[in-house]
Amino acid sequence: MNIPFGGANGGVCCNPLEMSRRELQGLTRRFTSEIAMLIDPEKDRPAPDMFTNEQTMAWMMDTYSMQMGYSVPGVVTGKPLVVGGSVGRREATGRGLVNLIAAAVERMGLLPEKLTAVVQGFGNVGSVAALELAEKGVKVIAASDVYGAACDPDGLPVASMIRHTEGGESVGIPGREGDVEHGVAGDPVRHPGAVRHRGPDHKGERVADPVPHPCRGGKRSDHAGGRGNPVEKDVFIIADVLGNAGGVTASCFEWVQDTQKFFRDIEEVNRQLKRIMLGAFQEVLELANQKGVSHRMAALMIGISRVAAAMHYRGLHP
Amino acid sequence: MNIPFGGANGGVCCNPLEMSRRELQGLTRRFTSEIAMLIDPEKDRPAPDMFTNEQTMAWMMDTYSMQMGYSVPGVVTGKPLVVGGSVGRREATGRGLVNLIAAAVERMGLLPEKLTAVVQGFGNVGSVAALELAEKGVKVIAASDVYGAACDPDGLPVASMIRHTEGGESVGIPGREGDVEHGVAGDPVRHPGAVRHRGPDHKGERVADPVPHPCRGGKRSDHAGGRGNPVEKDVFIIADVLGNAGGVTASCFEWVQDTQKFFRDIEEVNRQLKRIMLGAFQEVLELANQKGVSHRMAALMIGISRVAAAMHYRGLHP
Amino acid sequence: MNIPFGGANGGVCCNPLEMSRRELQGLTRRFTSEIAMLIDPEKDRPAPDMFTNEQTMAWMMDTYSMQMGYSVPGVVTGKPLVVGGSVGRREATGRGLVNLIAAAVERMGLLPEKLTAVVQGFGNVGSVAALELAEKGVKVIAASDVYGAACDPDGLPVASMIRHTEGGESVGIPGREGDVEHGVAGDPVRHPGAVRHRGPDHKGERVADPVPHPCRGGKRSDHAGGRGNPVEKDVFIIADVLGNAGGVTASCFEWVQDTQKFFRDIEEVNRQLKRIMLGAFQEVLELANQKGVSHRMAALMIGISRVAAAMHYRGLHP
Amino acid sequence: MNIPFGGANGGVCCNPLEMSRRELQGLTRRFTSEIAMLIDPEKDRPAPDMFTNEQTMAWMMDTYSMQMGYSVPGVVTGKPLVVGGSVGRREATGRGLVNLIAAAVERMGLLPEKLTAVVQGFGNVGSVAALELAEKGVKVIAASDVYGAACDPDGLPVASMIRHTEGGESVGIPGREGDVEHGVAGDPVRHPGAVRHRGPDHKGERVADPVPHPCRGGKRSDHAGGRGNPVEKDVFIIADVLGNAGGVTASCFEWVQDTQKFFRDIEEVNRQLKRIMLGAFQEVLELANQKGVSHRMAALMIGISRVAAAMHYRGLHP
Amino acid sequence: MNIPFGGANGGVCCNPLEMSRRELQGLTRRFTSEIAMLIDPEKDRPAPDMFTNEQTMAWMMDTYSMQMGYSVPGVVTGKPLVVGGSVGRREATGRGLVNLIAAAVERMGLLPEKLTAVVQGFGNVGSVAALELAEKGVKVIAASDVYGAACDPDGLPVASMIRHTEGGESVGIPGREGDVEHGVAGDPVRHPGAVRHRGPDHKGERVADPVPHPCRGGKRSDHAGGRGNPVEKDVFIIADVLGNAGGVTASCFEWVQDTQKFFRDIEEVNRQLKRIMLGAFQEVLELANQKGVSHRMAALMIGISRVAAAMHYRGLHP
Amino acid sequence: MNIPFGGANGGVCCNPLEMSRRELQGLTRRFTSEIAMLIDPEKDRPAPDMFTNEQTMAWMMDTYSMQMGYSVPGVVTGKPLVVGGSVGRREATGRGLVNLIAAAVERMGLLPEKLTAVVQGFGNVGSVAALELAEKGVKVIAASDVYGAACDPDGLPVASMIRHTEGGESVGIPGREGDVEHGVAGDPVRHPGAVRHRGPDHKGERVADPVPHPCRGGKRSDHAGGRGNPVEKDVFIIADVLGNAGGVTASCFEWVQDTQKFFRDIEEVNRQLKRIMLGAFQEVLELANQKGVSHRMAALMIGISRVAAAMHYRGLHP
Repeated sequence: MNIPFGGANGGVCCNPLEMSRRELQGLTRRFTSEIAMLIDPEKDRPAPDMFTNEQTMAWMMDTYSMQMGYSVPGVVTGKPLVVGGSVGRREATGRGLVNLIAAAVERMGLLPEKLTAVVQGFGNVGSVAALELAEKGVKVIAASDVYGAACDPDGLPVASMIRHTEGGESVGIPGREGDVEHGVAGDPVRHPGAVRHRGPDHKGERVADPVPHPCRGGKRSDHAGGRGNPVEKDVFIIADVLGNAGGVTASCFEWVQDTQKFFRDIEEVNRQLKRIMLGAFQEVLELANQKGVSHRMAALMIGISRVAAAMHYRGLHP
Repeated sequence: MNIPFGGANGGVCCNPLEMSRRELQGLTRRFTSEIAMLIDPEKDRPAPDMFTNEQTMAWMMDTYSMQMGYSVPGVVTGKPLVVGGSVGRREATGRGLVNLIAAAVERMGLLPEKLTAVVQGFGNVGSVAALELAEKGVKVIAASDVYGAACDPDGLPVASMIRHTEGGESVGIPGREGDVEHGVAGDPVRHPGAVRHRGPDHKGERVADPVPHPCRGGKRSDHAGGRGNPVEKDVFIIADVLGNAGGVTASCFEWVQDTQKFFRDIEEVNRQLKRIMLGAFQEVLELANQKGVSHRMAALMIGISRVAAAMHYRGLHP
Repeated sequence: MNIPFGGANGGVCCNPLEMSRRELQGLTRRFTSEIAMLIDPEKDRPAPDMFTNEQTMAWMMDTYSMQMGYSVPGVVTGKPLVVGGSVGRREATGRGLVNLIAAAVERMGLLPEKLTAVVQGFGNVGSVAALELAEKGVKVIAASDVYGAACDPDGLPVASMIRHTEGGESVGIPGREGDVEHGVAGDPVRHPGAVRHRGPDHKGERVADPVPHPCRGGKRSDHAGGRGNPVEKDVFIIADVLGNAGGVTASCFEWVQDTQKFFRDIEEVNRQLKRIMLGAFQEVLELANQKGVSHRMAALMIGISRVAAAMHYRGLHP
Repeated sequence: MNIPFGGANGGVCCNPLEMSRRELQGLTRRFTSEIAMLIDPEKDRPAPDMFTNEQTMAWMMDTYSMQMGYSVPGVVTGKPLVVGGSVGRREATGRGLVNLIAAAVERMGLLPEKLTAVVQGFGNVGSVAALELAEKGVKVIAASDVYGAACDPDGLPVASMIRHTEGGESVGIPGREGDVEHGVAGDPVRHPGAVRHRGPDHKGERVADPVPHPCRGGKRSDHAGGRGNPVEKDVFIIADVLGNAGGVTASCFEWVQDTQKFFRDIEEVNRQLKRIMLGAFQEVLELANQKGVSHRMAALMIGISRVAAAMHYRGLHP
Repeated sequence: MNIPFGGANGGVCCNPLEMSRRELQGLTRRFTSEIAMLIDPEKDRPAPDMFTNEQTMAWMMDTYSMQMGYSVPGVVTGKPLVVGGSVGRREATGRGLVNLIAAAVERMGLLPEKLTAVVQGFGNVGSVAALELAEKGVKVIAASDVYGAACDPDGLPVASMIRHTEGGESVGIPGREGDVEHGVAGDPVRHPGAVRHRGPDHKGERVADPVPHPCRGGKRSDHAGGRGNPVEKDVFIIADVLGNAGGVTASCFEWVQDTQKFFRDIEEVNRQLKRIMLGAFQEVLELANQKGVSHRMAALMIGISRVAAAMHYRGLHP
Repeated sequence: MNIPFGGANGGVCCNPLEMSRRELQGLTRRFTSEIAMLIDPEKDRPAPDMFTNEQTMAWMMDTYSMQMGYSVPGVVTGKPLVVGGSVGRREATGRGLVNLIAAAVERMGLLPEKLTAVVQGFGNVGSVAALELAEKGVKVIAASDVYGAACDPDGLPVASMIRHTEGGESVGIPGREGDVEHGVAGDPVRHPGAVRHRGPDHKGERVADPVPHPCRGGKRSDHAGGRGNPVEKDVFIIADVLGNAGGVTASCFEWVQDTQKFFRDIEEVNRQLKRIMLGAFQEVLELANQKGVSHRMAALMIGISRVAAAMHYRGLHP
């Protein structure tokens, strides 16, 4: 993404679902205390992933800050707004994805108002993407979550569905559940579930959930596939590592704002997110075309070539 | 204000008016040396208050920097421009206040050109506010300082008065002093003097000086009151903690610029100041309307709820 | 330049032309290790100068970073892009110079399309300046480097000349070398050569190379002179310390971006460069006119008065 | 005492007797975390006082060490042996006192075997002093604690009394309580109780408890008085600030051993304790004789003159 | 051992026997640079083990010191004398072992002059132990190394054998190799080889090599066994973890001296070594007798109970 | 000397004799502040030299300590006792020298009581050496300072002369000045004056002053020469670099005590001083005999070989 933000994963072996809030807090604080010598706004900045959330990051930030003797919000990202989080971070993955979809649509000469979309997963990513698509005129005809699904060839009422699901309800619209289930029941089964199917060597990004398909036809085989799927000839597939990148970009923005002690408003956050997303997209498209490879391959080639160039210049000390 | 800048006060028990420049410098350096372990751009950043000024902050900055071995301008705010100060900081309190007045006027459907203003205090805050108001078409009909006052129902020549007072003269226009004193003599007596009446538990902000009243009538009871005054029914009172906030916001900007090592021009400083002032104003108005409380109460509610939320998320370590 | 970026020079006594890459790396790392206690993004940030380049700075950055235990790109400037360099830094000296030339031309009421330019030196600075001038409509009629020169009263094809010289070739156009040499042979002799003639007490800036002359007549005596030349009556000479300043300004920008962890795109870099260059130019012009001194003298007066003011405010600790 | 160990007191306002172990731990850790920036083996090293003990110090040491990322035993003294405490520290106050008593006895030409002693208080200090005295041949004829007392003109069985009281029992020997109470009941009432009577400006040292009197006669008025008592003509009174000093000296030794990472055996600890105690005693005696003042006054004079000399040499920075 | 010196192992996967000195140096420096954030005289202090030596530690010390900007000898132990090593460290394992043997012999009421010893391994440990034993009057009747062995029922000339082997020769005395091999050939086969047989979960201490047997009879089954061997009824076996401890104790002493900046002479080093060895031996013997367990078990019980006590007191932060 | 204490000199170009105490303090504090990043108990520890004294070191210690926020006595040596100096440091050079003289005398089989000594210079070094010699029974027959001299073939009353000169008087005994001057007037002329003749590349040690000659005969040519003098055949000359070393050894001891936070008594300081002095003396004598070189050459050979060995082991990083 051309942002100074690397990536590595770590975790604690436990079942947070069976732990009390007090236990979770104790575990988080001890873990933070143990890795405190490795993290720092200048060194390494943990972000939340599966089974961790804003609260977890606030505990980490508090533990580290108490150890330092003053507030160090930049040591983690994904914090609540009141302790140094960033506006627009929660929506960034979905929004960044739709930035790319809109660019792809435009590049293909399509009109958003004539397109339909199907959204698998309806959490932080999918619901935001659905709403952004709807606002651009795309007709969202189906949406699903782990409990159910909804579809309507005339377009789903995305905004009211979001309000509905905020209370913890399934996206399956009450009273029409039977239909809904029926309409797309077979579908999810054939899709690689975002969480379920991630291999051991993939980063556990929830941002893999949404698989919208603003593509030409209505055939199932046309939908935009995810990771590692072979590029189908007549389908424009946005590489997953690129489509997902809005979240980590917003984490980087949160860190930047904590570092600068100057917080951007939502317009500026969205403007910069779009600039970064489209810049990377453009680079990937160009290399993919030039080398005749998939977007995913091109994205990896760009990433690896940057690491290689940095290693070449820096050399091996001492 | 939604800026990452807290507040606490400290001081030295002495009479600076009876001390030589050498003694003031010695005192300032020793004090800085003693608190050096507590201050840092990342920890705590003193700003000037009563009986301290740009020179004081420069001495503090120099003492701390010499101890660190390199220049650390961000350790204090309120510095002279040449050692890391910010353009527009001196004028920020008056300018921020007028940002709010203008917004209030617009919200009330009034036209600036039809309004008159009285300014109590004509120092860094009052004179700037008077000038900004005059530039917006408001007729400034009276102004006072601790030595005297001036009034003119047709509007005072604010710009030339400012030049006049820069030499240390009173705002009382020479040759008309008698009249002037008479015209508003009774007025200051009934107003709580900014410096004189601050209670022991209030922050010693000079920004309390100006009490302009761009309000509907000409009656005395209509003027915009200050801290803690009950909200009078037909008067739009800008909460003092909000009206004063331009100064601390500019201090925050100075710190941000020292941290970023990138200095903004005056247009950008003013633009960001306005953005912050109006954002906070908007929030306060909304909550005041929603809860049926005064602006001051709403401002305090917002501030306290932010602290409460931060405490909730951070918890109590260890 | 009104940027928080001082200046001092240091070096290692050796002949890098006779050293292997391995030896250069070893020397650079040991040197960096020895001065590590003096450098830091907050303290002092070396930039490349003669016989040092992006690779040198990458080694310095790597050595320092390995000592600190994490990447510290802000400890040096002039780095390759992939390890924290800035877009537009290489072109900044030439581009900044042309910002000033354009402002001077406009101030003199001249039209770029009616002007001709001669560029002495065709490296990072001269070639960029030539291209920027050509893009503004100025006819570049001559250019030289240490190996040869080229001239064409109808204007040289700057863009293709740049591509030509990127391969290490001289600016002397193949096949026309004889003419070229003849055409401007006498000229460089009378000009103080940038590298050759620098006195022992001048900073070794390559940015001194370009001496374009977008001035009124075509006479040799009219060309814009460099450092210390007496101001000729009918010639508008841009002070060398000002004309050169684009490079150090961009170094400051690189440092700012490393500090903020937020990288600007080329448009923003150029916009800020222009703002800084023109701001300083304006200040110099005003003081020169006011005091009746040369631009160079005015520039020095401004710089020295800033240092004096800072010393006055900071005092002498302890 | 001529040891590099100053003194200041601090505390937390709470009733530890009403707090659970979990609450005490939480309070201790938070307090340590808050003052962590002020303490350090090189800066300030808390030691236990009333209502704090080895366990408290272990929690403080653990909290500070976890914040630093490695064990820092030297940050507090009074720790359990297994986390960096010192052998002989618990007994040091009593033992140091007996060092002085023995020196005083020798100086007065008395034979220990012909002396009797009364010990008020039978905790860490009094019981150790009683035992040391008994081992030197002094007959300990009475001992008391807050619950009762014991006396025997033929000498009490000190060692067995210590074993008895280790279980939390009073020093009052079972079965003889009535007598015991009667025998010395009037005595404690007239003595200033160590804990009970300390003024607000005195350091809360438990070491004030023991008031042994290895003096010539058997009359009550001859016993060795404590703080501030007028020096009675025919009584050799060891100044309380000197008699108490074994504890702080041993704290200093604990710190020295933590700093050196080399732990002394009990013989070396006792040898150094004796050297320090007798060295200070000698200095006090000499000055008291020379100036004709009490030991207490002489001790204070020595302490204050050292501070004065240090201030004279160091001056007032900056 | 009651010294503030913990234990953990780490290593680099490589074959140092196939690497050049330059490669070894590069590897050592990079490794040191990578772990630099974890080591420090106050945190963790590596010591040499298999395939590392004084030179390795000097490189580590130099790398760390260059990173810090000043000499930090205390960051590693096992350094050459000239860069902060300790006298007597090389001989400490053998010497410490003989301290224990002598104590055991005395405790058993034996006379050294009537004893014989067999030493397996003749390197830093075995040869020193043999010499120390010989100096106490013990007849060393056999010695072996990986290449050969020597035996003489009348006692071997230990001192001259040491001079002989310093040149890299085997302990097998030239010209008598055949005999020698024969005399003890069967023996090593039945002994667990120190290096060869260490299990994956044991610390790779060379100090395990020597297995002297100053025991009563001359039967093979009587020799002092090593780790984990069942305690044979009529044999006094010094626990391996205790017998080996002279080396780590001397490493601790080296660290202490680097910390204190005060170097002990060889007499003081040996005196302190003996004090520590015998103190631990005494503790182990007492517990073994009291609990009826082997020395090895008693040593482990003591170590573990210390860790348990420390954990009890320190608790779990936060 | 086999102590971890290197050497380098620095200074400030000024005439302290013409400066007020206030100016000296200001200069010292500014100088300390400027070099603060280079000094530290672990890095570099200035000691006093010409025109600096205990007071200077106290100012340096105070300035550095105030910058650090706590007392750091170990950052300089040569401090007054009350701020962390060492007993016996002032006398250490003279005392260390006499340690060597006594060893030389013993080695030569001479009896102190039969020897005479002449002392040139009677300050911190010469007077102490004279007294120590007198206490060993040596007859001090002459002594001089820059103002005069005294001699008495029957031995001078050294102790009373010291008391006499402490008031600032010359060593020339009142009333006998004429004689005194005559008696040794020619002598100093032929001796290289300690302060007067030091070349630009020698360390300005006052310790060079004393040139006692406890040698066999009474002839002038037999006196113990100083630096660089050729070794005369029948004279035992103690190398100046060795004879002087007591002072720097005591500085090292002061640093060690500040580091350990444990102060030695005068007996221990003298004992360790003697151990170090005689250890180095022995080494020098052995090498001088073995190589047939002067003591001075042997001392230099030992010093240089240690540096060479350290450089060999440490290598050149990176």
